[in-house]
Amino acid sequence: MDVTLAEISRPGRVDTGEGISAEELALAARNHGIPLEALRYDVTPPGLHYLLIHYDIPLLDPLTWRLHVGGQVGTDLTLGLAELKELPSRTVRVTMECAGNGRARLEPRPVSQPWLVEAVGTAEWTGVPLREVLAAAGADPGAAEVVFTGADHGVERGVEQDYQRSLPLEEAMREEVLLAYEMNGLPLAPQHGFPLRLVVPGWYGMAHVKWLRDIEVVSEPFTGFQQAVAYRLRQAPDEPGVPVTRITPRALLVPPGFPDFMSRTRVVRPGTVTLEGRAWCGRAPVERVDVSMDGGATWAPAVLAEPDGHPWAWRRFTFEWSPGPGRYELSARATTADGEGQPESQAWNRGGFANNAVQRIPVVCLEAE
Amino acid sequence: MDVTLAEISRPGRVDTGEGISAEELALAARNHGIPLEALRYDVTPPGLHYLLIHYDIPLLDPLTWRLHVGGQVGTDLTLGLAELKELPSRTVRVTMECAGNGRARLEPRPVSQPWLVEAVGTAEWTGVPLREVLAAAGADPGAAEVVFTGADHGVERGVEQDYQRSLPLEEAMREEVLLAYEMNGLPLAPQHGFPLRLVVPGWYGMAHVKWLRDIEVVSEPFTGFQQAVAYRLRQAPDEPGVPVTRITPRALLVPPGFPDFMSRTRVVRPGTVTLEGRAWCGRAPVERVDVSMDGGATWAPAVLAEPDGHPWAWRRFTFEWSPGPGRYELSARATTADGEGQPESQAWNRGGFANNAVQRIPVVCLEAE
Repeated sequence: MDVTLAEISRPGRVDTGEGISAEELALAARNHGIPLEALRYDVTPPGLHYLLIHYDIPLLDPLTWRLHVGGQVGTDLTLGLAELKELPSRTVRVTMECAGNGRARLEPRPVSQPWLVEAVGTAEWTGVPLREVLAAAGADPGAAEVVFTGADHGVERGVEQDYQRSLPLEEAMREEVLLAYEMNGLPLAPQHGFPLRLVVPGWYGMAHVKWLRDIEVVSEPFTGFQQAVAYRLRQAPDEPGVPVTRITPRALLVPPGFPDFMSRTRVVRPGTVTLEGRAWCGRAPVERVDVSMDGGATWAPAVLAEPDGHPWAWRRFTFEWSPGPGRYELSARATTADGEGQPESQAWNRGGFANNAVQRIPVVCLEAE
Repeated sequence: MDVTLAEISRPGRVDTGEGISAEELALAARNHGIPLEALRYDVTPPGLHYLLIHYDIPLLDPLTWRLHVGGQVGTDLTLGLAELKELPSRTVRVTMECAGNGRARLEPRPVSQPWLVEAVGTAEWTGVPLREVLAAAGADPGAAEVVFTGADHGVERGVEQDYQRSLPLEEAMREEVLLAYEMNGLPLAPQHGFPLRLVVPGWYGMAHVKWLRDIEVVSEPFTGFQQAVAYRLRQAPDEPGVPVTRITPRALLVPPGFPDFMSRTRVVRPGTVTLEGRAWCGRAPVERVDVSMDGGATWAPAVLAEPDGHPWAWRRFTFEWSPGPGRYELSARATTADGEGQPESQAWNRGGFANNAVQRIPVVCLEAE
């Protein structure tokens, strides 16, 4: 028999005008976004945080599971969960977003997990700072990168692999980078990386390796699939591309009023409507949020909540709106301390990464009852 | 201004050959199915149970929330959560499935939440048997139905509504029908109906009204939207149709081996592969499961786990498979004690309800490594 991976695992592609395929739909049914009304919560309730799982959720036994730390280190380490929990711990509130968020709005559409706008969530992660473990192993300070390997195994664009990503050593040594074993005060759920995952505040989700089983300190930049092939900003498939790293600024409104089931168009009635939402960025603090009711023709500043001691998590904003009967298109846009904002339409890239075009919410205001 | 609900909330329709629409995709991104590998667990871990939310998740304050019980009763009741928890309680393990599971495989495709096969989950629900509350209110034993109203509000096919469904009185009086305030030993999550939901073991998910706020005992059959318009088996939009009630038999395999990211095609290698899966039905016990490796040409009996004291939950089945290199299509089909089975292709209905066509999983077995 002539059976090869190539026949079931094809190269990346963009759509050619056909609708969403059954393959994309199967990914959308497995992986899910945050229902936008859950942007109300400072910390996303369990089960509502976005999820993107490349292969399957592995079934790992916490009693036999071990983390190996090796490579350019003084001493290889093999650590069980109980040993990790004896090390110093800290808790960090982190807003995490999928690098492919917004992909399905691009034209042509990169064929992959078809996110619209909802691939985000915020959690309190508790674990051991990675640098404590690197220090315990005696990591070479002259090393280039640290490579993280998960227990999730699959094929992607023809390449069989365990999920692997690297970080430059200086990023790995940041005090808030964690080997997390708790989410919101409970052991990690299977789908969030039980028993251990990497958490890299400020970076898109692909960096936060789940089901972590191996850490290797290396002297040369890592060239594995998820680093050198996937998660690159490129216009053509043969370009080396620019790596996807930190989260670009984005603001999302809780859609006001109530929805139509099928179109998700919102309905409000005349009176004061308190709009609320969340804004975040992994590169610099969000310093300003503006909202528009007319599809971006005019903008007004929203009220941004004071910093709450969680610099890696989203910030709440509000706006008092007094609509009369009519049709509206609501948007919000974040601006950072560095002056970075959000585009009204997204510059295209072939993987559909780092999209932060402004949200657009159709709203009708009916006559008063 | 001439703004009407009709312009944002259109009648039900079937597709005319176009692909999945952005509206359907937005529903798929909000609502999610069980990742099929989670069929491994007897009870679905939090966050992996399927979810179908018609409108938004309401934000309810458990301190001010009340359940009203009225209609054809001796005494109207207004109950808080603490009062409900003082009543007798029981815990029932229930497999719940969305009535629209499988809809997206139909041709033409009913345009709604586009489930493939994954809209299922099993949980342990704890609460007060509904009949205890009906008895406390002195419900008229000659009444026809009980109507349940949730706090979730929206528009559907042009009709503004709170979500409402009814049960015939004799169904409502079944001992295992619960007003549930716990799921898997914890307070209900917001997305599962906090603080209280109805649980009707054996029925499709539309009957299990979430965010319950009102129970009314009525003397005539309820004709609200979700009862008389939606959730009906019909061929044409103007037929009265047959109500959707109990879950038809279905078996699902955990897809074996590992997946390709995009196609979800499975890869195994030669040797023994233990296949496992779950089978359920809301009408009669599942008594037999058969599996096929050749697209349904031949079938072999799986080993069905002994009954485990949870008659409203799925049953596990296993099968030892020894593939050689080649291409396979795996299927499983359940048969109940009443002799009801699963069709190889689904008889079409306009809402895409009660579909239980057999699952089909493409698998390749590579050469040994």
